[in-house]
Amino acid sequence: MVQAYILIQTEVGKASTVADVIAKLPGILQAEDVTGPYDVIVRAQSDSVDDLGRMVVAKIQQVDGITRTLTCPIVHL
Amino acid sequence: MVQAYILIQTEVGKASTVADVIAKLPGILQAEDVTGPYDVIVRAQSDSVDDLGRMVVAKIQQVDGITRTLTCPIVHL
Amino acid sequence: MVQAYILIQTEVGKASTVADVIAKLPGILQAEDVTGPYDVIVRAQSDSVDDLGRMVVAKIQQVDGITRTLTCPIVHL
Amino acid sequence: MVQAYILIQTEVGKASTVADVIAKLPGILQAEDVTGPYDVIVRAQSDSVDDLGRMVVAKIQQVDGITRTLTCPIVHL
Amino acid sequence: MVQAYILIQTEVGKASTVADVIAKLPGILQAEDVTGPYDVIVRAQSDSVDDLGRMVVAKIQQVDGITRTLTCPIVHL
Amino acid sequence: MVQAYILIQTEVGKASTVADVIAKLPGILQAEDVTGPYDVIVRAQSDSVDDLGRMVVAKIQQVDGITRTLTCPIVHL
Amino acid sequence: MVQAYILIQTEVGKASTVADVIAKLPGILQAEDVTGPYDVIVRAQSDSVDDLGRMVVAKIQQVDGITRTLTCPIVHL
Amino acid sequence: MVQAYILIQTEVGKASTVADVIAKLPGILQAEDVTGPYDVIVRAQSDSVDDLGRMVVAKIQQVDGITRTLTCPIVHL
Repeated sequence: MVQAYILIQTEVGKASTVADVIAKLPGILQAEDVTGPYDVIVRAQSDSVDDLGRMVVAKIQQVDGITRTLTCPIVHL
Repeated sequence: MVQAYILIQTEVGKASTVADVIAKLPGILQAEDVTGPYDVIVRAQSDSVDDLGRMVVAKIQQVDGITRTLTCPIVHL
Repeated sequence: MVQAYILIQTEVGKASTVADVIAKLPGILQAEDVTGPYDVIVRAQSDSVDDLGRMVVAKIQQVDGITRTLTCPIVHL
Repeated sequence: MVQAYILIQTEVGKASTVADVIAKLPGILQAEDVTGPYDVIVRAQSDSVDDLGRMVVAKIQQVDGITRTLTCPIVHL
Repeated sequence: MVQAYILIQTEVGKASTVADVIAKLPGILQAEDVTGPYDVIVRAQSDSVDDLGRMVVAKIQQVDGITRTLTCPIVHL
Repeated sequence: MVQAYILIQTEVGKASTVADVIAKLPGILQAEDVTGPYDVIVRAQSDSVDDLGRMVVAKIQQVDGITRTLTCPIVHL
Repeated sequence: MVQAYILIQTEVGKASTVADVIAKLPGILQAEDVTGPYDVIVRAQSDSVDDLGRMVVAKIQQVDGITRTLTCPIVHL
Repeated sequence: MVQAYILIQTEVGKASTVADVIAKLPGILQAEDVTGPYDVIVRAQSDSVDDLGRMVVAKIQQVDGITRTLTCPIVHL
């Protein structure tokens, strides 16, 4: 099982709806609006890094209004 | 009461009109053109961080020609 | 009540101990190691933006091995 | 006369004292702590861009605890 | 002979097809999807820095879905 | 008299024509294609920082294919 | 099995020895000097994302002269 | 023959002496102080990309007070 934070930049004016839509996707644990260089911070979970990559490209990045995503896998050191 | 600097990047050629339009919005104390990685620096004020976030998304980011905003709340340490 | 994500860069080789130490501070809800441009992502909570700023400067930034923190307050739009 | 915003990053834990010291320098109109990628935002004024550059290097950057400054001259378009 | 890594950002949702298309271009040794601030990392080879620059502009940047490329020539110190 | 370097990012595939067009504008001393995070580096000259800002917005940013400009005024310390 | 690119920044003047030392570590497939925002680009392999994170912190970041590492896991979309 | 711009960040307060020292190195065509995210911009020339890389590491990065260099080779597209 792999968890990750996904830091998201949205088109101006879209942060709120982006967070709402992502929050309902499977595998999403949390999706919140923030201020600063990112607009939405998401916590997601999947079976492997490859699955995580596929979830980001096939599900999250399909949400209208997203311009960049930065995936930060959580590691247990 | 919360104040913040909002560092704004605009589409090329739009900096001047963006600053003029933002300067007239409620809650804006100052809006000026700058050179460097940002194009316009704004000083804004609102009742809370949530209000500030809403003002940025609902008012400032609606101004035509803005591509990114970076909100930096002022803190009293 | 204000919550925030705090994205942390550490000195090389210090990510794991930084996360462990921060996790035990008051007001910290979560502190995890990640890969990517940040080394540790923290979720914190305090009474106001000013309190949050003070917590970051007076508590989190005192932890040995931190080089940069980026505070992203959560907003409810 | 030239005015500029100077966006400052400080060593961890030094933001508050950096802002206090800079606020007392000649030519400084304002110096405040912020959260986000910068720690202190300053507004300064001098006779020319060269003077401004000299003020940043000879006065502001001499303040203990500063790691980077980013000068953004205000322009009247 | 000059080799270089080319770090590529793509439009959201396009990383996979961008990597597939680039992998088939002449002079490309490798093209893979990654997570983090870049979406695709390519290894390319050409006769000179000028040729490399031309390859990036005339071949790689023509691939649909690319938003930024960052060319990092390999040097033998 | 103020001189400045202007670091330019272009749309993919447009670097070469952007440099050619800018090189012919008044006040431009040099315009060259580079590899790395910027695509074109320009050296320009004008009467004041305000004039420089106006030249960037009114002349350089009007060139088709530019996505970001970063003006770095030269200072004599 | 997980592979990743690790983009490394070094102290000034240390790029060449950093690449040489990393190249001899277990799990490293390639380590080369580059120009641009990064100084060394490494390709590494390990059993899982957690192992990869541990290798970066426990092995690579222990190499003298490294200031930042950016791990980009390769994903198969 | 290869020419390049080298964008340099210095320790606070060191920009002026860094530019002076670099200007006297062999292969340096120009070295000037700037404001913005970089402190000194240098134009250099050498026989090949490898030579350029060696010049940066062996000569320029040895100058006291430099914290980062970003080499941008000029390309003729």
